[in-house]
Formats: sequence, C-alpha cells, structure tokens
Amino acid sequence: MADSKKAKQNHEEENPFEEMIKRLDVAAKIMKLDSEVYEIMKKPSKLVYCSMPVKMDNDKTKVFEGFRVVHSTALGPSKGGVRYSTYVNENEVMALAAWMTFKCAVADIPYGGAKGGITCDPSTMSKGELERLTRAYTNAMVDVFGVDKDIPAPDMNTGPQEMAWIVDEYSKLKGGFTPGVVTGKPIHLGGSLGRSEATGRGVMTATMEAMAKMGLNPAKCRAAVQGFGNVGSITAKHYEAKGLKIVAISDHTAAFYNPDGIDIEKAIKYRNSNKGVIKGFKGGKLISNEELLTLNVDVLAPCAMENQITDENAGKIKAKLIVEGANVPNY
Amino acid sequence: MADSKKAKQNHEEENPFEEMIKRLDVAAKIMKLDSEVYEIMKKPSKLVYCSMPVKMDNDKTKVFEGFRVVHSTALGPSKGGVRYSTYVNENEVMALAAWMTFKCAVADIPYGGAKGGITCDPSTMSKGELERLTRAYTNAMVDVFGVDKDIPAPDMNTGPQEMAWIVDEYSKLKGGFTPGVVTGKPIHLGGSLGRSEATGRGVMTATMEAMAKMGLNPAKCRAAVQGFGNVGSITAKHYEAKGLKIVAISDHTAAFYNPDGIDIEKAIKYRNSNKGVIKGFKGGKLISNEELLTLNVDVLAPCAMENQITDENAGKIKAKLIVEGANVPNY
Amino acid sequence: MADSKKAKQNHEEENPFEEMIKRLDVAAKIMKLDSEVYEIMKKPSKLVYCSMPVKMDNDKTKVFEGFRVVHSTALGPSKGGVRYSTYVNENEVMALAAWMTFKCAVADIPYGGAKGGITCDPSTMSKGELERLTRAYTNAMVDVFGVDKDIPAPDMNTGPQEMAWIVDEYSKLKGGFTPGVVTGKPIHLGGSLGRSEATGRGVMTATMEAMAKMGLNPAKCRAAVQGFGNVGSITAKHYEAKGLKIVAISDHTAAFYNPDGIDIEKAIKYRNSNKGVIKGFKGGKLISNEELLTLNVDVLAPCAMENQITDENAGKIKAKLIVEGANVPNY
Amino acid sequence: MADSKKAKQNHEEENPFEEMIKRLDVAAKIMKLDSEVYEIMKKPSKLVYCSMPVKMDNDKTKVFEGFRVVHSTALGPSKGGVRYSTYVNENEVMALAAWMTFKCAVADIPYGGAKGGITCDPSTMSKGELERLTRAYTNAMVDVFGVDKDIPAPDMNTGPQEMAWIVDEYSKLKGGFTPGVVTGKPIHLGGSLGRSEATGRGVMTATMEAMAKMGLNPAKCRAAVQGFGNVGSITAKHYEAKGLKIVAISDHTAAFYNPDGIDIEKAIKYRNSNKGVIKGFKGGKLISNEELLTLNVDVLAPCAMENQITDENAGKIKAKLIVEGANVPNY
Amino acid sequence: MADSKKAKQNHEEENPFEEMIKRLDVAAKIMKLDSEVYEIMKKPSKLVYCSMPVKMDNDKTKVFEGFRVVHSTALGPSKGGVRYSTYVNENEVMALAAWMTFKCAVADIPYGGAKGGITCDPSTMSKGELERLTRAYTNAMVDVFGVDKDIPAPDMNTGPQEMAWIVDEYSKLKGGFTPGVVTGKPIHLGGSLGRSEATGRGVMTATMEAMAKMGLNPAKCRAAVQGFGNVGSITAKHYEAKGLKIVAISDHTAAFYNPDGIDIEKAIKYRNSNKGVIKGFKGGKLISNEELLTLNVDVLAPCAMENQITDENAGKIKAKLIVEGANVPNY
Amino acid sequence: MADSKKAKQNHEEENPFEEMIKRLDVAAKIMKLDSEVYEIMKKPSKLVYCSMPVKMDNDKTKVFEGFRVVHSTALGPSKGGVRYSTYVNENEVMALAAWMTFKCAVADIPYGGAKGGITCDPSTMSKGELERLTRAYTNAMVDVFGVDKDIPAPDMNTGPQEMAWIVDEYSKLKGGFTPGVVTGKPIHLGGSLGRSEATGRGVMTATMEAMAKMGLNPAKCRAAVQGFGNVGSITAKHYEAKGLKIVAISDHTAAFYNPDGIDIEKAIKYRNSNKGVIKGFKGGKLISNEELLTLNVDVLAPCAMENQITDENAGKIKAKLIVEGANVPNY
Repeated sequence: MADSKKAKQNHEEENPFEEMIKRLDVAAKIMKLDSEVYEIMKKPSKLVYCSMPVKMDNDKTKVFEGFRVVHSTALGPSKGGVRYSTYVNENEVMALAAWMTFKCAVADIPYGGAKGGITCDPSTMSKGELERLTRAYTNAMVDVFGVDKDIPAPDMNTGPQEMAWIVDEYSKLKGGFTPGVVTGKPIHLGGSLGRSEATGRGVMTATMEAMAKMGLNPAKCRAAVQGFGNVGSITAKHYEAKGLKIVAISDHTAAFYNPDGIDIEKAIKYRNSNKGVIKGFKGGKLISNEELLTLNVDVLAPCAMENQITDENAGKIKAKLIVEGANVPNY
Repeated sequence: MADSKKAKQNHEEENPFEEMIKRLDVAAKIMKLDSEVYEIMKKPSKLVYCSMPVKMDNDKTKVFEGFRVVHSTALGPSKGGVRYSTYVNENEVMALAAWMTFKCAVADIPYGGAKGGITCDPSTMSKGELERLTRAYTNAMVDVFGVDKDIPAPDMNTGPQEMAWIVDEYSKLKGGFTPGVVTGKPIHLGGSLGRSEATGRGVMTATMEAMAKMGLNPAKCRAAVQGFGNVGSITAKHYEAKGLKIVAISDHTAAFYNPDGIDIEKAIKYRNSNKGVIKGFKGGKLISNEELLTLNVDVLAPCAMENQITDENAGKIKAKLIVEGANVPNY
Repeated sequence: MADSKKAKQNHEEENPFEEMIKRLDVAAKIMKLDSEVYEIMKKPSKLVYCSMPVKMDNDKTKVFEGFRVVHSTALGPSKGGVRYSTYVNENEVMALAAWMTFKCAVADIPYGGAKGGITCDPSTMSKGELERLTRAYTNAMVDVFGVDKDIPAPDMNTGPQEMAWIVDEYSKLKGGFTPGVVTGKPIHLGGSLGRSEATGRGVMTATMEAMAKMGLNPAKCRAAVQGFGNVGSITAKHYEAKGLKIVAISDHTAAFYNPDGIDIEKAIKYRNSNKGVIKGFKGGKLISNEELLTLNVDVLAPCAMENQITDENAGKIKAKLIVEGANVPNY
Repeated sequence: MADSKKAKQNHEEENPFEEMIKRLDVAAKIMKLDSEVYEIMKKPSKLVYCSMPVKMDNDKTKVFEGFRVVHSTALGPSKGGVRYSTYVNENEVMALAAWMTFKCAVADIPYGGAKGGITCDPSTMSKGELERLTRAYTNAMVDVFGVDKDIPAPDMNTGPQEMAWIVDEYSKLKGGFTPGVVTGKPIHLGGSLGRSEATGRGVMTATMEAMAKMGLNPAKCRAAVQGFGNVGSITAKHYEAKGLKIVAISDHTAAFYNPDGIDIEKAIKYRNSNKGVIKGFKGGKLISNEELLTLNVDVLAPCAMENQITDENAGKIKAKLIVEGANVPNY
Repeated sequence: MADSKKAKQNHEEENPFEEMIKRLDVAAKIMKLDSEVYEIMKKPSKLVYCSMPVKMDNDKTKVFEGFRVVHSTALGPSKGGVRYSTYVNENEVMALAAWMTFKCAVADIPYGGAKGGITCDPSTMSKGELERLTRAYTNAMVDVFGVDKDIPAPDMNTGPQEMAWIVDEYSKLKGGFTPGVVTGKPIHLGGSLGRSEATGRGVMTATMEAMAKMGLNPAKCRAAVQGFGNVGSITAKHYEAKGLKIVAISDHTAAFYNPDGIDIEKAIKYRNSNKGVIKGFKGGKLISNEELLTLNVDVLAPCAMENQITDENAGKIKAKLIVEGANVPNY
Repeated sequence: MADSKKAKQNHEEENPFEEMIKRLDVAAKIMKLDSEVYEIMKKPSKLVYCSMPVKMDNDKTKVFEGFRVVHSTALGPSKGGVRYSTYVNENEVMALAAWMTFKCAVADIPYGGAKGGITCDPSTMSKGELERLTRAYTNAMVDVFGVDKDIPAPDMNTGPQEMAWIVDEYSKLKGGFTPGVVTGKPIHLGGSLGRSEATGRGVMTATMEAMAKMGLNPAKCRAAVQGFGNVGSITAKHYEAKGLKIVAISDHTAAFYNPDGIDIEKAIKYRNSNKGVIKGFKGGKLISNEELLTLNVDVLAPCAMENQITDENAGKIKAKLIVEGANVPNY
C-alpha cells in the first residue's frame, strides 16, 4: 500500500499551519470573531525548539530536534500529545497545537491547547535510545511542562512507556513524584482506567448521537472503518456492539470487504498474532483503501491518518454519515 | 542614501543562518573538527518563540512576535543582545546566537552564545508601548533568562532603558532584585562604567595590535570610518587620539571626505545637535558610501551594518587593513 | 436616603477594632477563655500595609494605600474578602479579619480569618485603573496570599473581575496557573457554581432553622428585608419560596411597604432595569428605612451595611426574629 | 538623671513620622521635587506588623508586637536596623525607615531604606527569651528579609548576638547558610572587621572635614561629647587622637567636666569595669547633662539619644560646630 | 512480667535487617524474582542519620540520634511510621522500611516503604523536651519528607501530638500549611476519621475472611488476644461484636483467662481508669503470657510486640488460626 | 609490594571512627572542652546512605552503595572529598568528615567538615559506568550538596572529571549552571589554578616552617619521600627546589635509594611514560618501602596512604622531622 508514501507526500506538499489558518478564517467570519481576539488566536502563544545530542547504542552522538508549542492557555493549562516521527516540523506542531485549543474549547473543558514532537524515526531506534531521547526532551522542556502549565500526552508513536519516562525525569528534576505532569501514563503510575479505549468509544458515541439525529437505526446500518490501530479497531468493536454491521476494515497493509459483516473480534485476534497488521486476514475480500472509502455504506469512519478525504475522492463517497476518528485530540 | 533600503534587501535575500553554517563548514574543515561536535555546533541548543498581545496607546491590542535563541552553554551561561527591528526573524537570531558562541569562545571568556529579538518598528512606538512590550517579552522568557542561565544585553534599537525594564520585570517575577540578569543596564542599577565606549575602544585596540604586527605607524596612516553611531564615532575618536588621520566618515544620511583629516570632536558635536545624524556637516566633502569604502586609505573600519563588503566591492578596496566594527558581539 | 452618609459617620466615629475587642471580652468572660489564648486572639497575627503608585488614565501617578490582615491561621489557611472603599483603614480591616476567624471557627470549617482592602473610590476609576491597582495590590501581597496560606475573596466593591485579575497576576508571579489562590472568581476560571446566591440562601437557611425552633410557621409569617443587593434580594426571593410574605424591602435609594406582600421577582426585574436600584418601584408604598426596621413583622433581615440596629432603634423593633445578613463572612 | 524619662516623654509627645514629613516638605520645596515622586516618598513602600506569642521562662506565653517598614527599594535592597524598646511603634519605625532611604541616597550607596523593631523591654528578659523572640520575629519577617530584598542590622538594644540568631533562623527557613541577610553579625559568621568602631569613626571624620572647612585647628579646639556608649566613647577616642581636647563626657548616669581634658582611655577602662556606666568616674567634675550641652567648647558631639537639642536649649549652645552622632544610620 | 526485658533481649540478639533478608530470599526463590530486581530490593534506597542537640529542661544540651530510611519509592511516595524508643537503630529501621514496601505492594496501594525513629526514652522526657526533639528531627529530615516524597506516620511511642509538631515545623520551613506531609495527625489538623481504630478493625476483617475460607463459624469460636493497647483492645472489641468469645487477653503487666468469655468493654474501662494497663483486672484468672499463646482456642491474635511466636513455642500453639496484629504497617 | 594488601588489612582491622574518637578524647581533655560541646563533636551532624542501581556496559544493573557525611556546619558550609574505593564504609567516612571539621577549624577557614564515598572498584569500570555512577550519586545527594550547604571535592580515585559530572548533573537538577557546588573541578569549568600542585606545595611549606624552627638548613639536609603520586612527586619537586637532597622515593610498585640524590624531574618523566608507576626507574638502588621509612635522613615525608608509621616501625625511624602528606585534607 502507498499509504505511508502518500502521507509523506502530504507532509511535504501541505503547510498544516496555513491549512489551520484557512479554516480559522472561515470560522472567524461566521462567528464574527473580534479582530483583536482573532490576531491572538492566529499565533501560538509559545514555541520551544531544542536540539538534543543523544548517545546512540553504537556510542556515536546523534543530534535530534524537538518541538513543543503552546497555542493558548486562556482556558487553563495547555494539553496536547507528543509525537515521534520523521515528519514532525514546526508548522505541523503549530497547527496541531491550535487544533487542541479549539477542541478543548468546543468540548468546554478547562484546558488550553499544545502539541509537541521529535523529528526521529522511532522504528529504527532501540528502547535505550528512545529512553535517552525522551529524557533529553523532558530536560529541554522542563520549564514548559507542568501540572498547572502544560501537560503532554501520547500521540503518534508514543504511549504509556514514553509518558513514564517523562514522569520519571520530570519528577527527578522537580524533586518529587509528579505523575500529573502527563496524561496517558501507565495505570500503575496513576494512569486513567479506560484511556486506551477512549478515542474509539468516543467515535462510537458521536456516531450514535448523529444517527439518532438523522433517524438512522444502527441495527439496519452498514459501516466501513478505515484504520485498524487503537482507534479503528475499538471503534469497530463498539459499532458492532451497537448493532452496526461492519462491512469493511483496513490498515496500511490491507483492506477487506465482507457484505455479511466482518467478525471484529476475529480480526483483532488475527492482528494481535500477526505483528499488529491485518494483511492476510481471511474474514473478507481484499479491496483497496480507495474502494473502502467509496463503498455503499451508511457510516464511514476514517480512523487512520488525517486528510484521507480529498477533493478527488469526496464526490465519490456514498456514506450518509462520516465520523472522523483520525484527528481526534489527544488529551 | 539607500543604506536602509539595501539593508532591508539584504535581510530579505539572505539567510543569515545558512551563511553562518557556510563559514562554520570552512572553519570545521580547517581545524578538523570532530564530526559529532560539529553536528552539535550546527544547531542552536534552544529557540523560544513567543507571541505577545500588547495594549497600544490607542487601546487596541496588537500582537508582536519575539525570539530568544540559546546556541550553546558549553562554556558557561549564554550571553547575547536583544534587538528590536522589523527584520528580526528566526534565521537571523539563530545565526547571531551562533556567532556569539564563537566570539565568546575565541575571546576565552566563560560564556556561551545567545541572541534575541522582537519583530517591531520601535521608531513608531511610544515609550509606554515599548515598556509594555519589553515587559511582555521578559514574562515570556522568564524561564530562559537567568544569572546562571542566559543573560541578555542591548543590541540594535535597545539600550539601558530596555535593560532596566527587563531587570524590573524579572526581579518582580523572581521576588528579589536581580540586576545581574542583564548587562548593559543603567549605571545606577549596577551597570558597568565604560560600557558605552567599549565597542569603539575595542575596534581601536584591535587596529593598533594589527598595525603593530604589520609595521604601520599610526601617525603616518589615514583611516576611513563607516558609520557614526555609538561604534563608529567612538572608534574615530580613539583613532584620532592614537594619531591616525580620519579622512572619511559616514552614516546612513551622508558620507564626508577630507584629505586633511576630519575634526571628530566637531563631527560628534554636530551630530548631537542634529538629531543624531551627520547630514549637513561642513567638515568635509560629500561623497557616497560606496566611495568611502574604496578610498585610498591605510585603515578602513566598517562600523555600520553587517555585510557592507561584498563580492562586488571587495576588489576595489584599497585599505591595507580592514577592522570590522559592525558585527562585534554585544555582551 | 441618608444611608451612605450615616455609614460614613459610623466609619468616622467608631473604632471597629475596639468594638470587636469589647465583644470578644464578653465572650471570653462567658467561656472562661484561657488568658494566654485570649492575648493571642486580641491581636492580628500579621498586618501588611503597602503603598502603590499607579499610573492613572491621565498619565499621572497616584499613590494608593492597601492592607491585608491575617488574624489567625490556627485552624487552617486564612480566608477573607478584599474591599475597595474610601473608608478602608487599619482598624476596620483588623476588626473584620478577627470576625472572619471567629466565624470560620464557629462554622467549624478548617480556615483562619483575614481581611484586606484598598483605600480608594472605585466609582471614580476606570476599568484600566482598577486593573492596574488590583495587580499592584497582588504584587505587594504575593508573599501573604497562597493556596495554603491566605485566600482572598470578593468583598465591598470587588467581585469576580477583581478576583480574576488577582489570579492572573498571582499565577504570573508564581509561574503557573493558580486559581485556588482566591474564591469568588468567575465560573470559567474555576469559580463555584451557586456562589453568587450563597449568602442569601444562607440567611434563608438560618431563618428556617430558627423559625422551626421557635415554632413559627413560615406560611403564616411576614418579613421585612433591608437591603436589595446580592444578599437582600436573594434572601427575599428564598423567603418567598419558603412561604413567607415579604411586606417590606429597601435599598440605599428607597424603602417600600406592602401589607399584601411585595412581588420579589418583579422587584428584581425592576431593579435590573433601573441601574441596580429600586427607587421608583411601584410595588409598595414608600416608607423610610427607619420605619422598615420597626415594622410589625415576624422576621427582620438586615442585609445592607453593618451596625443598622443601634441603641436608639433597638427598643422599637417588633420583629420576633432578626436574622443578620449584613455581616456574613465573605469566603 | 532624667534622661530616660525625658526620652519617654519625647516618644509620647511627638510623632516622628510627621516630623519626617515636615523636613521632607522643606527639602522637596528647595529641590523642586516632582510632585508625583514626592507622593511616593511620603509613604513607606511596605509595613509589616506581626504579633508573636513567645514562651517565657516562667512557662507563660506572652504576646509581643513587631514591625518592619521598607520605605523604598528604588536604589537597591533596603537596609536598616532592628530595635528592641518599649517605645517602638509604627510611627517611629516608619519615620526611621524613611531617614534610611534619604541617608543611603545622600551617601550614594545602592541601598534603599528600612527599619524594624519589637515593642519590648529587653533589660527585663533572659537570653533565652530574647532568642525565642528574635527567632519568632525572623519567622514573621522571612518573606520581607532577603539578601536581594531587605537587610536588617543592629540598632537600639540589638547587636551581633541578635543578628546571629536571625542568620541562624533565616538560614534554617531557607535551607542554606545565608549570612548576607544581615549586617552587623559576629565576625566569625562573616561580619565586617571595624564595624563596631564605624559610627564613632564616622563622627570624627565628619568633624575633621567640617573643621577644615571652618578653618579650625583640632590641636587648638575643645570638645564635649554627650553619650559614652559605642558611638560616644569611640568618637571621643578618635577626637583625642586627632588632637582635640575633650573637656566633657556624659552618659545617662552622669556627666563630667575637666578643663584640662579628660583622659578618654581611662574613662573607657573605668566604664568597662563599672557595669558599662561612668557614674563615679574620677577624671572630672560632676556636671548636669544640660550643662554639658551648653559648655563653652568648639565642638559639641551629641552621641546619645535623638532630639537632645530643643527649642529651649538651642539658644544657649556655645559650640561653633555641632556634629550629630545620635541619629546616624545603622547599616 | 518479663515482656519488656525479653523485647530488649530480642533487640539485642537479632538483626532485624538480616531477618528481613532471609524471608525476602525465600520469597524471591518462590516467585523466581529477577536477580537484578532482587539486588535493588535488598538495599534501602536511602538512609538518613542525624544527631540532634536538644536543650533539656535542666538547661543542659543532650545529643539524640535519629534515622529515616526510605526503602523504595518505585510505587509512589514512601510511607512509614516514626518510632521513639531506646531500641531504635539502623538495622531495625532498615528492616521495618523494607516491610513497609512489601506491605504497600501486597495491598496494591500506590506507596513505597519507609520507616524512621529516634533513639530515646520518651517515658523520661517532658512534653517540652519531646516537642523540641520532634522539631529538631523534622528540621533534619526536611529534605526527605514531602507530600510527594516520603510521608511519616505515628509508630511506637508517637501519635497525633508528634505528627502535629511535624506538620507545624514542616509548614514553617516550607512557608505554607502542609498537613499532607504526615498521616495520623489530629482530626482538627486534617486527620482521618476512624484511623485510631483502623488497625484493630483490619485484624478483625482479616480474621473474618480467613474464618470464612476455613469454614469456621465465629459464633462458635474462642479467641485469645495478646496485647491490649490500641491494636489488641480494638481487635478484641470487634471480635466480640462479630460473635467470637474472647477467653484471654494480656498486656505487658498481666494476662487473664476466662473460659466464659471476658467482657471487653469492662476491660477497656478498667484499663482507662488504671493508667492504661490491665494489671488488677477482675474479669478473669491470672495466667502467664506464655500460657495465653498456647491456650486451646480457635483464634490467636498476637497484637503486642513482634516476634512473639518462636521456635520454642510454635509447636505448642493450639489455635487453628493465627492473625498477626503486631507487625501491621503503620500508615 | 604488599602495600595494597596491607591497606586492605588496615581497613578491615581498624575502626577509623573509633580512632578519631580516641584522639578527640585526648584533645578534649587537654583543652578542657565543654562536655556538651564534646558530645556534639563526637557525632556527625548528618549521614546519608544511598543505594544506586546503575546500568553497566554489559546491560546488567548493578547496585552500588554511597555515603555522604556532614560532620559539622558550625563554622560554615561543610567541605570534604568524595572517594571511590572498595574500602569505603560508614565508619571511614564518618571519621574523615570529623577530621575535615577539625582541619578547617584549625586552619581558621569558614567551612565545616564533610566526606563522602562510593563503595566500588573504579579500576574495573569504564568511563561510561563511572559517569552513570557519579550522576546517580549526585541525584541521591542533591539535597545534601549546595554552595551554601555542603561542597564536595576530589579524593581517592576521583578528580576533575568526576567533579565535572557532579557540576553538570547538579546544575541540571537545580535549573542553572552551579559550578560552585564542588571544588577541584576542571579549570575551564571554573576550577582554581594551582590546585593540582597545592597539596605537595603545602607539604613543602610546612616542612620549611618546621625546619626553620628547628634550625635546619635545607641545603644541608637529606629527605625521603614515600609515595610518588600527585602529593609525593610534587613534594619531592618542591623539596629539590628548596635545596634538599632527595635520597629516596617510592610508590606501591617500587622504592629507590640514591645517596647522591635522585633526579626528581627524571623520575617524574619516567613515571609519566611508565603507566604512572616508578617500577623500573634507573635513578637509584631498589630498596623496600620499610627500608625507606627507616633511612638515615633528616626529613621523612610519608605521602602515600595513611597509617604507615606504626607501633612496629616508629622506633626505627631516624628522621629528625616527619611531615605527613598522606592525610592532608581534600578541600
């Protein structure tokens, strides 16, 4: 599949910060946003860049670059994920931080928006290297982070382990155990029960609310779910539990269609025993990802990367309801 | 004169950070710099960007952007000026911070390199607006600055008044009088005697050392000094005291040539009574800035903006000795 | 009405601190208070006075005086309002802080007593001037205030806006969002729901408890409420909801009597559309404030300024139950 | 002698703060002080009052009252003594703090003015009681004092021992040895050599400067010194060394006159062996303190309490030069 | 009774730390504990010893020795009691701290293990001496203790009063009221309701759970309880309430047997009126402590000192169920 | 040579803390030390033990034990070295810390005494392992160390590199460059010029002073120096410069005798090119270490390990003057 190549292309061709500004402009016009407030919203409150020399396992020092953007703390301490990826750059992080501000505000929770990241390819790094990099990043951002200032969370390629390293390093630097400095930490460090399923459950909840408004009966509807990671697979599981028939699933290795409904539990088991991917799954017919998006379904849930629906394919989508699961805020 | 337009052009056309890297590459090759150290030197240790909403005198809020770059603290707390200018941008500040690292290291003083700035046009702002902006900048950078971390100083369009505001705001935020957080503050706040003349005196000292090595007798040499601000006029004054004949001076409003020597004290008096510029001075013949650079002199001291000697005019310069006064580190 | 003149007179003629001591003496004798404890209770633990130069809108600097008195922290961090008034002085603030200690102790909540104030006339000041004054006061008191030390609250002429300024300035000085440093802040900064109605509801609750003990049936009782600000009007509304007939209300502009009962909802609407005062209200006959206090009612609730019941009028009061709403602690 | 009674009277009858304002008014008029600056100078920047329950040796708790006034920190951290006396009150401390501001400014040293005190009679207290009181005072003032904020010093009835207690308690509260928080501490804690003689030496220096201006030859002049404590006896010793003939000395127990000159070394030895007072000294004729002030001498140095020269006795003074040693700032 | 002599002997003869290691070795073998983790568990993370000069009531200074051991903070801030006893030594405190780690981990609460103590005989000290000693200990351990670091609690010979002194001293040193730094503080300082009964209630709960598993009916069972302090008497009271017949009780002064059941309420009343001991109680026949341990009962609850069941007496014990109440963690 | 075995034996057989107490007892008796002060001096003020899990190069975790003892801070912040050795234990560190107190006091410098160490064999560890161990130790001791609390220094097997790691880690934990937290750091981090030669120069200075008192002429005297590390070789070099003839030198690998004088410069050069030892040096005749100590010389300087002069060999020593260079305080 060309998914990752496409994603890279997207990263190269687009400026996510300018994209954000464009949509903010539309919203500002509709809501007649005060021009002074608008000027404040357009720019991140703070951006911190750091370079981090890290000793690699081969005893050579490699210099990584990291970012943390606090877009706004007007409603409370800022929240937002930290992602590890070769695509991480200033514009992306600035855009995502702004989106976090808007999402927290729309959800009316007392937090501002932030986002961070390190430009690296974690798939090529050892656990020791990732630990040293994460600790270096925490050192560089020790004055940015804080229970009452800015609270990181897992994001692309980071999870409970990275958060645990941040807690440990931050606590060392501050002289006391401070688990509240991140969310998404391991349960035994004070993490929240239910967090790992939270995004998928949220997609389901939003879907149910929308279907009720639209007068759609879940028991009579068919759904396609793009992406089968933490968000997509949980979404599919919850859809199924609500009576929806899941006729298509996909990940970056394969997409499957089954008009009689895919057995999600089986698919999850297969993935878990197959290095985390569904390639080779026998519960449906192989289709392309593009076909999945344009299937004749009632509900389409894109739960992979952002920007999957484009000018090109938008007109071909047949779903009555699209519920975006890819760009959900990491809190 | 087209000086300021030219400067603007320079700012737009060049990437000062890439220029810095080019020269670093040359030096690294010559000194066979370890490749890991080189990778560390290439990137600033830290960059902090902030946006600052400031209430203007017309009661409107305007959002300014500020930067602070700490290039290296390997040899001690970082030092470097804060400039206020419409040209201030990330690349310029990153480049200047690196230069500060190199200069402190070459001078063997126990400091690292930093630089900061605010994108603004101070000539259009009231004192109250400048104070509020400076205090907002200090607030944004309170975790970057510190007696044992990073110490700002005056730079383009900033001086003792701005430093006093920084001391006052920083002291308020830290809960105790902390004059050591900046250099270049007013004398009665603990500033150093002799600081205002220091750069010009340094240009003269460097010139004398070089002339001694070259076997040049000051009493028999002629000099041209470009720029008649704090650096240029003091340089000229000290040259004169050492016996050099100053045959040309200039600023962004005019340039003058006098083969019998310009009376520097008179020129300074004229400038002080003429809104700070020498336009209209009667002590020499009006020439162009370009002519000044290519005069038949022994010593040429460019003490205005950086990058005055270019591929185009380098070949035409006749001075035996060029002593750069424009790019001297602000400490 | 001569209410405000009278209040001023009270302020001038009496020493509220000595008044407090007199009543403390009576209580100490009754409860056989240990003499060493008594000596400690007589004096405030701490008083901080500050003078604050504030830039006014006319660009002149005016010097204001502020106070904060912590009477006792024996039971926990001290609590108490901050008032803005020309009558604010050392003795008043010391007395009110002591009352806060006693009230918190009687209510058995884990707080000590404090009170603060600024000598100023907020009615003559712009919002900008009030903000700068409040921020100056917060700066001066930054070492007194604290979530675990002393927690201000709104009081005479201060409210959620002033508390928001205190939170913002205090958070800036402490380097992290600290909404817990005050109570009475705006809801979206973490303020408590129901706070604005709390004092009036408390007056009602106390009244109901007392009436039950006295065997009085609310449905058969008549009440007069002095004061129609936040305390008085809410008290009246809640009395009405409990079945009491409100036969008289007043504020500093007028007092009304209606033997058939005053429609409180109408009175509140009238006030809201009449610059906050009830002068001109048509729901009752105009009487004097003095007459209101001596009406033939079952319940009298003085909810205006303190010290309304005096040696002179005490003998003429006919109410069976007086519930004081004026001197209720501000938390 | 009625000295102490007189002093008490002075304390009761006068308001030293108003006295200070009167003299400030005169000075402000002469120097055409800007009215806004004048308003700032009139009021202390900060006053902190505390009540301190202290366990006495009889196991009873006694409540003491303490003060610290910071008049101004415009020129640097504030400096000023802490006095222990039954006369200590708000007005006195506010006045003395202002005088410290003026004195530091006139001497052009980078410090502001402060003063503190505790209302107590140290002559009736044990060393243990004084230690507990001093530590309680340090606790109450821990947020006021600071190397870069406000620096206490010995004053009436306090000395190196009290300063050592302050250093110890302050260091404990701050978590590190902080001898710089006071001046006037014992030498082995970092105190300055020569401090105990400094005031007396200063009186002598001022006298010599004035005599030189007046054309008076020390070797031909006679002096009377009022007070024989740390200031007076050192002044007399230094006068003698400069050639002046000391014809009269006094303390609160006696005054002596000797036209042939008093042997100061003998007087000091006598005092040291006589419980610190000169009563019974044989080196001169017993006179009254009033007589001492009006002797026919060239130089009169009042080195006892303030305000010894009054409307009544001023006209009778015959000295050509009066050098005030009583009101010299304690730094 | 020879109980205390025996205890002393135990203290002298055994090394409690080596005892702990022996049991850890057994457990490590059974659970196949990773050898690197085992090495970490074997040693306390930190031990702090301090010597404390304390002024005694006779005005002499006596030097006491104190300890605080933090065994592990892997699961959260460490918890553990502070004991005052002449037997307190490094080995004991290290052993008890380790036990706290294991107990918290087994109970799955987010705390690590610690323990502290002072070598002293509190029975010979006045309240003032104990207060000064406790405050000195708090000063010495101020960097060890902390809400998010290490939290002391009452233990042998310490209780709410000592915890209150720790809170007061710690709050003074940290500059704010910090009741969370200890547990077991007085209720009015924020202590937990029900704490004083908690250990005894826990023994009962554990007993009930075990009896249910063993198929024992409480109403038909007989119990002996060794120790009648806070743990033993509360255990006995709760046993009685659950239907068990308490046939024997004891403390270090006496042991009693009554086959018809001892009236626990009476025994508690007797103890309360008899200086805290049961010697002389008339509700049973006097037996030896050794006899109590080997009575023919269903349940034996040793609630006195640790290590009562030994190689010697273990074989003679007839109880079906032994529930250890002596070594329960102090939290 | 059996030197190191002997040293080990010494470590095992003796309790250096008890040795210190014995000598303190003698001194206390001679100076009639107040018994309360004596009790305070006998015990260290504070001892901190830590266990440190460190990741070794083979990826296994090894647990090391470290100590820091602060004996006294009565005269100022404590000073004392940190040693890395398998012999490091509580008793040794407690003894050495006490010696530091006495030495600083005798030298009348405003410092107290401390000492620390890690039980490890640095000769078997890689630089990376030593760095990780040193950083772990700094973390464990972060609340003990401090510019105004306790200041480590190099000691046995530690030097500028270890101090640099401490500075770096401590600065990271404190959030600012803090080179003052150790002495003995590298020059470019702020270390003192001349420090590496200081101990040897001190031995020479003490020798010269003693010889002057004894009337010995250096030019006519012969010396033997035991030990040829930093102390011994520098001592020998300075002795030579003062005219002494050095007839014997040694280290743990060999001892040499040359009645005509050993050329110290040659010996140093040989050692530098011979892995740091003098074995194989040709400038003298091979003798045993025991012979060196009992040579017929004027001056004997034992500059190797402590306790070289014993009951056994003391009687055989022929030197007129013994100057101990082994036990000199590390500051």
